[in-house]
Amino acid sequence: MKIMGLDIGGANTDCVIIDINDKHEIKSIQEYKEYLPMWKDNEKLQECLIKLYDNDSEIEVICVSMTAELADSYTSKTEGVLDISKKVIETFSEKIVKFVTFNGLKSYDEILKNPLDAAAANWIGTVNAIKYIKNNCIFMDMGSTTTDIIPLKNRTEIASGHSDTERLGTGELVYTGMLRTNLATIVHEVPVKNIPTSVSSELFTISADIHRILEHITEEEYTCTTPDGKNKDLTSCKRRLCRLICADLDTLTDEEIINITKYIYEKQVEQVTQGLIKVVEKTGLTSVIICDLGNSKICYNAAKKLGLDIIDIDEYISKKSMSIITAIGAVQMYLEEQDTNIQLIHCI
Amino acid sequence: MKIMGLDIGGANTDCVIIDINDKHEIKSIQEYKEYLPMWKDNEKLQECLIKLYDNDSEIEVICVSMTAELADSYTSKTEGVLDISKKVIETFSEKIVKFVTFNGLKSYDEILKNPLDAAAANWIGTVNAIKYIKNNCIFMDMGSTTTDIIPLKNRTEIASGHSDTERLGTGELVYTGMLRTNLATIVHEVPVKNIPTSVSSELFTISADIHRILEHITEEEYTCTTPDGKNKDLTSCKRRLCRLICADLDTLTDEEIINITKYIYEKQVEQVTQGLIKVVEKTGLTSVIICDLGNSKICYNAAKKLGLDIIDIDEYISKKSMSIITAIGAVQMYLEEQDTNIQLIHCI
Repeated sequence: MKIMGLDIGGANTDCVIIDINDKHEIKSIQEYKEYLPMWKDNEKLQECLIKLYDNDSEIEVICVSMTAELADSYTSKTEGVLDISKKVIETFSEKIVKFVTFNGLKSYDEILKNPLDAAAANWIGTVNAIKYIKNNCIFMDMGSTTTDIIPLKNRTEIASGHSDTERLGTGELVYTGMLRTNLATIVHEVPVKNIPTSVSSELFTISADIHRILEHITEEEYTCTTPDGKNKDLTSCKRRLCRLICADLDTLTDEEIINITKYIYEKQVEQVTQGLIKVVEKTGLTSVIICDLGNSKICYNAAKKLGLDIIDIDEYISKKSMSIITAIGAVQMYLEEQDTNIQLIHCI
Repeated sequence: MKIMGLDIGGANTDCVIIDINDKHEIKSIQEYKEYLPMWKDNEKLQECLIKLYDNDSEIEVICVSMTAELADSYTSKTEGVLDISKKVIETFSEKIVKFVTFNGLKSYDEILKNPLDAAAANWIGTVNAIKYIKNNCIFMDMGSTTTDIIPLKNRTEIASGHSDTERLGTGELVYTGMLRTNLATIVHEVPVKNIPTSVSSELFTISADIHRILEHITEEEYTCTTPDGKNKDLTSCKRRLCRLICADLDTLTDEEIINITKYIYEKQVEQVTQGLIKVVEKTGLTSVIICDLGNSKICYNAAKKLGLDIIDIDEYISKKSMSIITAIGAVQMYLEEQDTNIQLIHCI
């Protein structure tokens, strides 16, 4: 049996195709990613889905999670979910299609009744993939743009919030990431020659710049575009950082640049810590599974501050598979519905 | 004698052409604005200058201030000032050309020696235009992107900072404005149904959206582009605001939207108040001249919180002239060098 997991995001559609034999053994796992900027090209979604499907036309089941309904091309999440799910169902009219929701996998008919159940429910997929690592724990996952902090008890998510808005209130979603975060949204002021100096509110510099300067990521790992459209070498990153306080490389020394960079890094750790505190206080959980993009150790340092037991997800899964974990989780949910005992996290 | 004042900004070049007779009376004042996005089209600056000049080829003197050296097209402010001043001097090789600096008007030769003296010195022009309203006061000017808070004693600016970086430290420059400010740089969290909810760090919504919702500006006064490229009607503004917390018009009531909007407004007043406090504490000045874009009353409310005497600039100058006050101030500086007693602020 071949099952395809899809995560239709705002910029990328992630895909995993898993082949399982009758003895419930995994024959093959293939991973794909297609770039599709849904905020402008949502009409091309079917084209993209067909392309991914063509990698293996023996696929029988398709499990889909999504966040692309948040794209600017939709005036509401409901409109987005309805459009995306319709395009999926039309593309795969001959197949079994299931959607990831806050209440498990659902059919298209059920999505039509409660479209918001599927809105930004992709983290449910993630939870279902990683839950076999530890029964009771908090899963922390810092990506390019956001950080998820999800509590699990008895292999089930016990999050207090479901929608993104609720999760921004419960600490379970922190809108700060390794690459794309405008630094002016992390700090209101930075120290410059010991003077607290307020920052420019323009999009001059992003978190990828500080993580490049601190060597948490390589130039290749700086995978998003730069705010000024210029290079990703160290000097360009430092130049952008200077602009945060309307300075340039002529007016700040390298030492001053490093000081500012470290200050912002600490504030970003603090952002994540604040979310984590809320989750720990509510759940009493003491173990965390962390997944930090690059070598930033932000989740690690946040968990360490609170004295929690730390499990690094790198021990269980490769970085490549982690980047499509949501799609893998969507397939895992289907395998459970079918009462298989397959735990994908231990097979990839 | 015809004098042209120019303020070469990142997006617009402002221009005023003032004709003065031998008796030192003003014969005419003409005002122009040319849109030129310097971050991508800086090669077209000469074309733009010639166009403005052609409005009146009897011009003898040209006084220039600038901020366009901050544009992304330049790797440093020095590079920017040198390129812009060179283009100006080549365009007007037959004329008297003066540049606004922190040390008064300077020739091109002097700019070559100290280019940073002219970098973002445009507020010096502004001060020289408005100083005739009151000898000792603080001038507060909230524009689309930033707020200037400039102390004057005996008709002279006594700012503690000169460069933008220094001014961000002294409170004399606050990087918050009526239109273009990303709301995620003003607030880290907002109350949603009484729950402190952290915000998305994307550029989903800007200050123009809250000022439209609060009716501080009309649709016509929303002069910048929208973050999503969509409309400026009230519903579109509210929709964008909802996205600050990953919500939409289906999930927030109008009352909740208004509550969030008012909360952010108060935080923006607070931002300006923090800058003003630093300036008041340092100078002991008790009067302010305020210039609020639209009907926001942000500078007014900040000054009122501190119990200062308030003078509204609208009593002295029209909104149209205020929008090119820097160019007017550059001309005022030249009139003083020539020992005329002309006070342009009382003539426009």
